[in-house]
Amino acid sequence: MHFATFILDNKEKIGVLTADRQGIIPIEEIIPENPPHTMLELIKRFDHENKERGHTSCGGMSPTNDYLALIRKATVEKNGISLDMVKITAPIPHPARGVICLGKNYREHVKEMAGAASEAEKIPAYPVYFLKMVDRAAGHNDNIPAHAGITTELDYEVELAVVIGKQGQNIPAEKAEEYIFGYTIINDITARNLQRQHAQWFRGKSLDGTCPMGPYLVHKSAVKYPPELAIKCHVNGELRQNANTRDLIYSIEHIISEFSKGITLLPGDIISTGTPGGVGMGFKPGKFLQPGDEVECYIESIGRLRNKIG
Amino acid sequence: MHFATFILDNKEKIGVLTADRQGIIPIEEIIPENPPHTMLELIKRFDHENKERGHTSCGGMSPTNDYLALIRKATVEKNGISLDMVKITAPIPHPARGVICLGKNYREHVKEMAGAASEAEKIPAYPVYFLKMVDRAAGHNDNIPAHAGITTELDYEVELAVVIGKQGQNIPAEKAEEYIFGYTIINDITARNLQRQHAQWFRGKSLDGTCPMGPYLVHKSAVKYPPELAIKCHVNGELRQNANTRDLIYSIEHIISEFSKGITLLPGDIISTGTPGGVGMGFKPGKFLQPGDEVECYIESIGRLRNKIG
Repeated sequence: MHFATFILDNKEKIGVLTADRQGIIPIEEIIPENPPHTMLELIKRFDHENKERGHTSCGGMSPTNDYLALIRKATVEKNGISLDMVKITAPIPHPARGVICLGKNYREHVKEMAGAASEAEKIPAYPVYFLKMVDRAAGHNDNIPAHAGITTELDYEVELAVVIGKQGQNIPAEKAEEYIFGYTIINDITARNLQRQHAQWFRGKSLDGTCPMGPYLVHKSAVKYPPELAIKCHVNGELRQNANTRDLIYSIEHIISEFSKGITLLPGDIISTGTPGGVGMGFKPGKFLQPGDEVECYIESIGRLRNKIG
Repeated sequence: MHFATFILDNKEKIGVLTADRQGIIPIEEIIPENPPHTMLELIKRFDHENKERGHTSCGGMSPTNDYLALIRKATVEKNGISLDMVKITAPIPHPARGVICLGKNYREHVKEMAGAASEAEKIPAYPVYFLKMVDRAAGHNDNIPAHAGITTELDYEVELAVVIGKQGQNIPAEKAEEYIFGYTIINDITARNLQRQHAQWFRGKSLDGTCPMGPYLVHKSAVKYPPELAIKCHVNGELRQNANTRDLIYSIEHIISEFSKGITLLPGDIISTGTPGGVGMGFKPGKFLQPGDEVECYIESIGRLRNKIG
């Protein structure tokens, strides 16, 4: 199931794609009574229904499964609104706490960023976490500002992002999947000069408009766990990044388990799992993004996230 | 004027201290019609009133000044509720985007963290920004979890925090003060082992409950700009940090101006300006926080923020 946030008649709504992915069904048509109005509300609702069930019953199908069954049924039976009629935005347009990101989490990317040093020296002994501050995440087809006044080294990074579905702390690795709501694509656009200058990566990762996300938030029920998905990035049609999410150095279960030690993860938190080799910075000379460039991020089973610079 | 968020009869309210600082006046007693309910609403209201005025008038006293005058008058004329009757929380209990922090922004602190290297080598050529993720900021007198399972190197860092009052991007240094709402104290509690292990500081700075803030948010009208304030930290009564905010390497106007290049600052954003020398990590051997320890952070004109570990 592919959830989306979209604009119709100047109103932001949430919905789910039809099974043929040609149309989108507003959630209020499936859950007419007190429907969730934002993706975050939808995610919390799933979590809440789970908890309620825990208190009132001890077996049978959980309401989350009821919800899922209801929504899945609708994706087959309803026609939905043609995708041409709506503007798809980022599935979570205002990530409440920004995006928790991983650096150096694919070997080929570690190598290309390491310069002269040997690969072994540079594989991080522990995951490298940083935060990408986001006011409004860009959606599919939105323009990404070039930030020409402050950088000539704007770079792309296609990443598989995990969206947390329920609150948890000290989550055991073997239970990590329970805490996932679903998956989306993030292009972790980075100003390399700022990333370098300020030593900590936070500022170079947090420029306005540099967090394209989407187009869809795919529920975990539609992705085999752990995800082994082709992941690619094209710039102006040229294949730059081409890998598989099975090649993460630190796995999703490792990340969720470790990060949640002492830090409570909340529904709607987003963890972007790092980018494979092939970023612009890895080429000699660097192939950085220029105004007019089109970047397309692809992850199997999720979709294509396309954005122009400038 | 010292604004505070507080709990009375299990309800979270905002208010302002009386001039003698013995009582607190709920904001709804000063602005009975459609009062702001949270500190963030109050900050936005000030900003909004400013903007409205910009559209409808071109001179005279601005409504922000009216607001200020109204509130200041109340602090002198009203008795307020005795501080003993309320529980003071962090002034901004849920920092919407976490806390934007500066590393290495006092020379003595740079030296103590540098180890064998010479001071000059280690003064950062650009400010070091990182983010502290916060779900709920701790208030004055709240306990700080020891996180004994994951760290034996919990450290204190008293810091002057600047709270942004209005939205801005590419803010000129000479206009920085216009964008400030006020000042508070943050104790940037840090797990040094995690800060080191994960290379980027984000995780070691973001453990649950490690962002004590307050006790008050002091409006900028009560602090001479730029702030030259004594800043101290005591642990169990022993003076550990003792400096003045005039000694920042990168000034508040530099930080606001530079950080806002390409990143829009929003009302309620919090920028913590870095800690002076004297942190636990700087002693040989390290003097880290133990369960039962009491940390008191003091900044002149703002107050004392006291917390126990455990």
